[in-house]
Amino acid sequence: MKYYSISEISKIHVFGRMGKQKDPLPLLFNGSGVEVVVTGSELWIDLETDSDFYEPWVAYELNGALMGRQMLLPGEHSLCLFRNMEPATPKRVRFYRELQAMSEDVTCKVLVKGLKINGEFLDVPKYERKLEFIGDSITSGEGTYGAYEDTDWLSMYMGASQNYATMTAKALGADYHLISQGGWGVYCGWDNDIRHNIPSVYEKVCGLAMGPMNEKMGTQEDYDFSQYAADAVIINLGTNDASAFNQPPILNPEDGLMYKQRINEDGTPNREDILKVEKAIRDFLLTVRKHNPKALIIWCYGMLGSDMLLPITEAINEYRNEHDDSKVLFLELPNTTEETFGSHMHPGPKAHEQASKVLVPFLKERLNW
Amino acid sequence: MKYYSISEISKIHVFGRMGKQKDPLPLLFNGSGVEVVVTGSELWIDLETDSDFYEPWVAYELNGALMGRQMLLPGEHSLCLFRNMEPATPKRVRFYRELQAMSEDVTCKVLVKGLKINGEFLDVPKYERKLEFIGDSITSGEGTYGAYEDTDWLSMYMGASQNYATMTAKALGADYHLISQGGWGVYCGWDNDIRHNIPSVYEKVCGLAMGPMNEKMGTQEDYDFSQYAADAVIINLGTNDASAFNQPPILNPEDGLMYKQRINEDGTPNREDILKVEKAIRDFLLTVRKHNPKALIIWCYGMLGSDMLLPITEAINEYRNEHDDSKVLFLELPNTTEETFGSHMHPGPKAHEQASKVLVPFLKERLNW
Amino acid sequence: MKYYSISEISKIHVFGRMGKQKDPLPLLFNGSGVEVVVTGSELWIDLETDSDFYEPWVAYELNGALMGRQMLLPGEHSLCLFRNMEPATPKRVRFYRELQAMSEDVTCKVLVKGLKINGEFLDVPKYERKLEFIGDSITSGEGTYGAYEDTDWLSMYMGASQNYATMTAKALGADYHLISQGGWGVYCGWDNDIRHNIPSVYEKVCGLAMGPMNEKMGTQEDYDFSQYAADAVIINLGTNDASAFNQPPILNPEDGLMYKQRINEDGTPNREDILKVEKAIRDFLLTVRKHNPKALIIWCYGMLGSDMLLPITEAINEYRNEHDDSKVLFLELPNTTEETFGSHMHPGPKAHEQASKVLVPFLKERLNW
Amino acid sequence: MKYYSISEISKIHVFGRMGKQKDPLPLLFNGSGVEVVVTGSELWIDLETDSDFYEPWVAYELNGALMGRQMLLPGEHSLCLFRNMEPATPKRVRFYRELQAMSEDVTCKVLVKGLKINGEFLDVPKYERKLEFIGDSITSGEGTYGAYEDTDWLSMYMGASQNYATMTAKALGADYHLISQGGWGVYCGWDNDIRHNIPSVYEKVCGLAMGPMNEKMGTQEDYDFSQYAADAVIINLGTNDASAFNQPPILNPEDGLMYKQRINEDGTPNREDILKVEKAIRDFLLTVRKHNPKALIIWCYGMLGSDMLLPITEAINEYRNEHDDSKVLFLELPNTTEETFGSHMHPGPKAHEQASKVLVPFLKERLNW
Repeated sequence: MKYYSISEISKIHVFGRMGKQKDPLPLLFNGSGVEVVVTGSELWIDLETDSDFYEPWVAYELNGALMGRQMLLPGEHSLCLFRNMEPATPKRVRFYRELQAMSEDVTCKVLVKGLKINGEFLDVPKYERKLEFIGDSITSGEGTYGAYEDTDWLSMYMGASQNYATMTAKALGADYHLISQGGWGVYCGWDNDIRHNIPSVYEKVCGLAMGPMNEKMGTQEDYDFSQYAADAVIINLGTNDASAFNQPPILNPEDGLMYKQRINEDGTPNREDILKVEKAIRDFLLTVRKHNPKALIIWCYGMLGSDMLLPITEAINEYRNEHDDSKVLFLELPNTTEETFGSHMHPGPKAHEQASKVLVPFLKERLNW
Repeated sequence: MKYYSISEISKIHVFGRMGKQKDPLPLLFNGSGVEVVVTGSELWIDLETDSDFYEPWVAYELNGALMGRQMLLPGEHSLCLFRNMEPATPKRVRFYRELQAMSEDVTCKVLVKGLKINGEFLDVPKYERKLEFIGDSITSGEGTYGAYEDTDWLSMYMGASQNYATMTAKALGADYHLISQGGWGVYCGWDNDIRHNIPSVYEKVCGLAMGPMNEKMGTQEDYDFSQYAADAVIINLGTNDASAFNQPPILNPEDGLMYKQRINEDGTPNREDILKVEKAIRDFLLTVRKHNPKALIIWCYGMLGSDMLLPITEAINEYRNEHDDSKVLFLELPNTTEETFGSHMHPGPKAHEQASKVLVPFLKERLNW
Repeated sequence: MKYYSISEISKIHVFGRMGKQKDPLPLLFNGSGVEVVVTGSELWIDLETDSDFYEPWVAYELNGALMGRQMLLPGEHSLCLFRNMEPATPKRVRFYRELQAMSEDVTCKVLVKGLKINGEFLDVPKYERKLEFIGDSITSGEGTYGAYEDTDWLSMYMGASQNYATMTAKALGADYHLISQGGWGVYCGWDNDIRHNIPSVYEKVCGLAMGPMNEKMGTQEDYDFSQYAADAVIINLGTNDASAFNQPPILNPEDGLMYKQRINEDGTPNREDILKVEKAIRDFLLTVRKHNPKALIIWCYGMLGSDMLLPITEAINEYRNEHDDSKVLFLELPNTTEETFGSHMHPGPKAHEQASKVLVPFLKERLNW
Repeated sequence: MKYYSISEISKIHVFGRMGKQKDPLPLLFNGSGVEVVVTGSELWIDLETDSDFYEPWVAYELNGALMGRQMLLPGEHSLCLFRNMEPATPKRVRFYRELQAMSEDVTCKVLVKGLKINGEFLDVPKYERKLEFIGDSITSGEGTYGAYEDTDWLSMYMGASQNYATMTAKALGADYHLISQGGWGVYCGWDNDIRHNIPSVYEKVCGLAMGPMNEKMGTQEDYDFSQYAADAVIINLGTNDASAFNQPPILNPEDGLMYKQRINEDGTPNREDILKVEKAIRDFLLTVRKHNPKALIIWCYGMLGSDMLLPITEAINEYRNEHDDSKVLFLELPNTTEETFGSHMHPGPKAHEQASKVLVPFLKERLNW
């Protein structure tokens, strides 16, 4: 068995949005990790993790099948990814972070330090197709694990392993990036907190990961979009913007003001506040387009209700007209039903599977794949 | 056995949009017919039908289950709807037209003259919920019968019996009206014929049914909307408006001009022509609202592709803003896939079932049913 | 349009077990009928039917898809099977009897007299695979039509069109014969009537159809098994033999004796009576083998409970050992569940579909198809 | 946080077949483990494991939902089962062994030493229903993890977490025991090794686990059947007995003789050898009945072909007749198809789900549950 530090391994596919730090390699987002094709009978991965409240979970796949999923408490870890396999046969292994980037736990980290192997690294087949998913708790896979009754807000209920984004990328044989945060919206969070909007962090490496430790890892640096030219960017936001209208006002400590998306007396959302969401959508589309000049941009919505469908499409239409950009589309995803809920009223694995079954043919047709 | 002319039967539910002629009763649209609850061992229906090219098909249900479906050639018919049943048990029977109103066959008619029975008519339970569906070939159930390879344009492939509208109404226990025509759009037909737009016929009893015979039956009279206050109007139009962009120009014999929805050099639809569709949508929404002041209006779309999704939502948003009418919504229905096609590339029964499974919970939630 | 009497048409596939009378052609069993491939725009079938209580139902398929299903009251009929189709394209049409052979209605008959056509008869592709199904109400498709609540015993609830046997034959591209009767068993009927056993009629053309009219058509003649060499004979009997144990004694008017399959005090079936069923099974296997020397014989069971599974397999094992015949197999079919019942507690179309999905791969594997 | 050794915890449900050693508690079979209902925010389990080639995998469920699954290399482990949960809410946790008892790895063990908790142990609701499953690789869940292409014979592909037995017990709210071994049969193993038969180990605590370490833990002691009165014993054996007919002879080192289940020239199995299997079945039924005098015994078969169906039923019938024991039944389970295979040609999770959907209603009906 020989140990290779992560930077010594040339035949490796590092997936998910990454920053400049390469060794040890921080896995910043859910669904980010490393993939190798190896000979030998045994493979280990060496990690260093930390966390306060939100301990990272990780998962690993062998030849495309999920084999294990576990929590990692703070410390150094050496995990065996397989053992006793037929040495000559090539094995494809993907190891990845299940837990979303944690905006609420400044200590949370997953560092890949290296791999131990008694065989050789082979070339990882190149992914010709590239996707990027931007979203909220749905894209963080919240509720894809856990019992229907479970309502705590904990890292164990989130995952990339049973997530429409992962399912979609697998079905298409595509590489993919996930940038998502539970509770966040395009304009504000589920609780009216206007700081919790994805656009504010999209252009950083991992703007969600704050605090000195994360900063040192480069999460707050500008992301270099040139390194990953997505064929399609799938934005799945709006669910929390819709929730905000039904939540009480919240104090923004940064300016000392109260914020609230208002409801009219007849129960409809206040038009001025809707227009704030729409402006945020248009602005975000402009930002996404700036960094993905050739990508098809698809705004997906509907897995947890569709109250925001018309404002989203209104914003998309205005953006398209203003910028003469016909490569921005809208797709409604299937709503979650009693049969498809996972834990704490979020889409379960079946709902993610249904969403993927709508998204895959849509992408195939639009991208001529 | 005693014969009752249709006007002699007070305990009867006549369903579908009807005109002033009550005896014999013309069944004008697909999914229109008569429903009775009866005792006795036997029930017959007396009909008179005519047609040239598009012979009417009819279907009948016993206690909610489809029992028979058949073609009716021109002439008088006396069909046995059941026989030899236990006389005392109440039987609920629905008899209805499968074939859409035929704009292309001025002779096509289905007249219900009366019923023969050896028992009694009981009260038909009142439908408290009311739906109206407006659409094109999808709502005419085209392709719900026939083999995948069948491509003739014939009446036998259409139906109300395996149709998302019927499935939806059944699942909700609702009465329903169907106003639909294959090949027609909200602005123009699939072939750019601007005369083939549903709004032009919506306010007539059955504007689709033309010629002296139909006129005599009152199809061209103004429809009295006060007799049926739909809780929700579901409009499923846009598929043919999308097709028109890919079809050659067509001569309109009425004004001698050529018409064509244009495509830009980059393959996108011409914006001016899109705006014609959007204007037609806005105008139609205004018309539908005028006649259905309290109804929830839902524009459904997507069972055969979604190229027109953004124009439709743009028009809906503009209409909502201009008229301050928040009770107009949009819902994307599942696209038809290789597994769910029926005949000649139209949604088959499984596609209709999937659409219904999306529509039913949406209606339940929005109407508090 | 030209009329051809049935005997004038050489390019025709007559399916189902038939007797010597060929013109007019009696359709004796459910799932028996005629198949043609034709050009021309129009096709009609001329029929003569009769019945007392159990009026025949018929169905027809165009290019493999069910198009119509209807009741035929006594008299002469000329049914249009299609109209206005593109003349040059070949159309494949199957017309068949839905209703089982009626042992309880001596007047019941369906005679095919001829076809009218304005095109030509083409060769019907030959079926290389041949199946025979022997059964009870399940194989008569009882309950495949009708509402869950319907409990009358009527011909309209039976059918060949949504039946596991038809589904299986279609999936395998096989020709097939159905010999079945609701309420009958291998030893006795559901009500202990020992006259109601399928073996007693199996060797006649259609021993189920009695009375002078049927006799005149040759139903009571010995069937000439040499005309149809089935690759597999599927026997689906035992359900009514199981019911008999839970029914009161019945008088057999032929010998004036009471008959009853007995239950022991502990609720188990009486062994002596079980052995009567087993003997009937062994004897019937011998008969079936005699007439189908090369066929694979599969005893299927389980769509309505499996109380008789062990006696059936005991009898099969004994038969195999005694006659050194290893080509007799047993296959359990999926039980009908709350979700898959059709009318009056019989398997509905979904249950038949599930059975077919078990039977098709089993046959494929065992017959190397 | 307080540590409790396993014997200090009175409010605990220990599941799976266990021996006399209680502290530390050996988990001998797959699907054996401990269940607690606790308050507090955190729960840990302390373990000691060992293995040579076949490292144990374990899984844990929170409130009935699978949360994690991982390999345990030799050594001491302290695994966190949950953290940071709402302290007052009761949490139900099941921790269990995924890997079958390993007859081929004398060092393999999983010892539960104790639990750490910062809350209290509450009563675990008592299971009123009790099941026992006896089987081979299918019941060991082989193939329920891993990619279709994977063919190594490794512990990671086995599991109790996605297994028909677990699914069945969950659906019925029943406690359950698993006694199973991949490759073993009722008479001989898949490779003709007559030592690999389940009956030879059934009466020991865990006769499969050999060698000094296991013996010291009591695996070779007689099992005390009085401690667990199963309502139903489900035997799922025969698949490997069928394979043996197609495998070459094998030397039995214990007697120096070659063994082989023979095939006749016509491809059928040799009757004498079939009778050896049948004798083994009858003898095993006698053994199972001896230790489970009141249980319903169900022999299930068919998830990987059904070549042995008739011999199994022949043996059951003979046993029933000889011992007048009507509470021994046979049930065919759905065969695995292309769509439902897991890894190395074993049933995948969907095949196990289908089997469970057949078994659950069967048990409900037969046990009046």
